[in-house]
Amino acid sequence: MEYRNPTPTVDTLIIKDHQIVLVKRRNPPLGWALPGGFVDEGESIEHAAIREAKEETGLDVRLQSLFYVYSNPSRDPRQHTMSTVFAATADGTPSGDDDAEIAQYFDLDNLPTPIVFDHAQIIADYLEFQKTGKQPELARFLEKSK
Amino acid sequence: MEYRNPTPTVDTLIIKDHQIVLVKRRNPPLGWALPGGFVDEGESIEHAAIREAKEETGLDVRLQSLFYVYSNPSRDPRQHTMSTVFAATADGTPSGDDDAEIAQYFDLDNLPTPIVFDHAQIIADYLEFQKTGKQPELARFLEKSK
Repeated sequence: MEYRNPTPTVDTLIIKDHQIVLVKRRNPPLGWALPGGFVDEGESIEHAAIREAKEETGLDVRLQSLFYVYSNPSRDPRQHTMSTVFAATADGTPSGDDDAEIAQYFDLDNLPTPIVFDHAQIIADYLEFQKTGKQPELARFLEKSK
Repeated sequence: MEYRNPTPTVDTLIIKDHQIVLVKRRNPPLGWALPGGFVDEGESIEHAAIREAKEETGLDVRLQSLFYVYSNPSRDPRQHTMSTVFAATADGTPSGDDDAEIAQYFDLDNLPTPIVFDHAQIIADYLEFQKTGKQPELARFLEKSK
């Protein structure tokens, strides 16, 4: 008997001076997204986050904290993925590469559209978490399960 | 081309009055562990944590926070797993079931041996996190990557 599991991914919130790095995706779903991707077998999630950020933005990120894990089965239309989301900082200017056509900083009060998957929610949640210390995705889950 | 990924699991720190629930495993590796198990496709990690805690301890846990994700490739001798760890509370007395021969509270200053996988480290990390707000697994990763 083979068990099937969600596929693990990572995404990174690279934030500096109230700006965040987003990448314009080359592949569907098209739009803007946090830099990230799949975790390889034999690789830790921290390694995957740093590797994917480098591949898509050229930046060498410094991971600051693990924020939350987003695993709602409907978050990705292609398959059930679960994303471990890190907050990070970086020096320098991002530039798109690999799966990213463009990588650039956006003001957190003026984000581009569309932002794909649940990444707009993740960004809003992180800003909320910084203010309150609460994890909004957990609060939503608990509210729905009442 | 098929990509291979770590297999996602969940583990839950059920803590009350400076005591934590551990389960005695029926299957190798034998020893004490946090209640937890594999995440099913189509299931969120929050759901998996509550389901596994119920199956192994009989307790209906209330998830309090997501603590960290442990994904070091050597953490499980059988395969590369990554565990999302929650902190939770519960009422009532645990009792072993399913994969757990016994489930009971232990004083955090007097834990049984052996505690398998990296679960003793996870417990120590969580106590450290509660004091300092730092995520020790991330600090260890960053220290090793220097």
